[in-house]
Amino acid sequence: MLNPVHVVGTGRAGGAIAARLREVGLSVTAARDAPADADLVLLAVPDEAIADVAGRISIGPWVAHVSGATSLTALDPHERRFSVHPLQTLTAERGPEQLDGAWAAVTAETEEAAAVGYWLAETLGLRPFPLAAADKPLYHAGAAMASNFLVTLYRAAARLLEETDAPPEALVPLMTRTIENGFALTGPIARGDWSTVEAHLDALTERAPDLVPLYRALAEATRR
Amino acid sequence: MLNPVHVVGTGRAGGAIAARLREVGLSVTAARDAPADADLVLLAVPDEAIADVAGRISIGPWVAHVSGATSLTALDPHERRFSVHPLQTLTAERGPEQLDGAWAAVTAETEEAAAVGYWLAETLGLRPFPLAAADKPLYHAGAAMASNFLVTLYRAAARLLEETDAPPEALVPLMTRTIENGFALTGPIARGDWSTVEAHLDALTERAPDLVPLYRALAEATRR
Repeated sequence: MLNPVHVVGTGRAGGAIAARLREVGLSVTAARDAPADADLVLLAVPDEAIADVAGRISIGPWVAHVSGATSLTALDPHERRFSVHPLQTLTAERGPEQLDGAWAAVTAETEEAAAVGYWLAETLGLRPFPLAAADKPLYHAGAAMASNFLVTLYRAAARLLEETDAPPEALVPLMTRTIENGFALTGPIARGDWSTVEAHLDALTERAPDLVPLYRALAEATRR
Repeated sequence: MLNPVHVVGTGRAGGAIAARLREVGLSVTAARDAPADADLVLLAVPDEAIADVAGRISIGPWVAHVSGATSLTALDPHERRFSVHPLQTLTAERGPEQLDGAWAAVTAETEEAAAVGYWLAETLGLRPFPLAAADKPLYHAGAAMASNFLVTLYRAAARLLEETDAPPEALVPLMTRTIENGFALTGPIARGDWSTVEAHLDALTERAPDLVPLYRALAEATRR
């Protein structure tokens, strides 16, 4: 067990992580400079700030970051290093409980570092899995598609419902159930009902033409 | 109250609807031909079969369909007509409870027909809202984007995780929470972190090039 842990960054990730570590009884500091006795310095800072912050930490403790897309070399010159990326969208309105049940990608270069990374993930309430450093950008593209583009999909669909004076919140039970049903595909493309797809495209062309390329790209990917 | 109700179609929609109507104590028939005393004949058949089935029903009872994209003229020559489209993805593995809490688009040409449509939607456990006939294709495009394209998004993202040996089911808590958090946008595009977006595109170009157009269309829509 690494104790104390120094958390740099008080954003959504740093806030939830520090709160969880305190909750499980660890000694957590969060001042600008890491105390001399920290066993682990955890960087929950913007990706582009990681290298700079890591470079100002004295060699000695484990140093880790929580970025899903950033390699471990950003932690140079530290060699006792790893990353733990919580695969979750975090909000300042929630506390450490928002980590519960989420998965986490652990990237490490040694068995010892992997063990420490798994320990940290599990201590945070996350379900760890290993991720090679070279795979981080592709993995992170998947995470962004699943979460960020889900927002885009909702906003586009909500706009169409608003355009027809239908309540956009009516999409929420539909989307939630789509997930609960294990992402089973229903609807016109699943039925091979291309005349309905054409009717969608005609309506979009007339009333929301900027969404036509998005609809086409998604329909094409769905068809495949 | 319309009773008895005759339900044509034993697919996912017809099955759940007939079960719910029986559950609330209505007399429901489901044979091929509507009984002479039916107050309502409800067509839960494929869109392209609606006109044919409607044409074979004797004039008299209310006649309705449950299609989200089909106009009411498909119910010709019946004039006592309407449509109720449950805004939900349905599966044969679940029963009538899958209608609970979902919304429903009610399309009607007269106040009386709208009242009957609302009665039916509420009897089914759905939350009705009015939808003009001319708006159905645009509304249905929104529904398809929200549900069918959500499946596409998951499948694409899951493929990227599999490609990195990460467990695709790790996306489920992420996507569920994205909805629970009211579709708040997080991630690189929300932060204006274009170098991460470029890293995603580089990784996709190398390892999943067929997903590049989809990623670009979604990133462009997200940016707007």
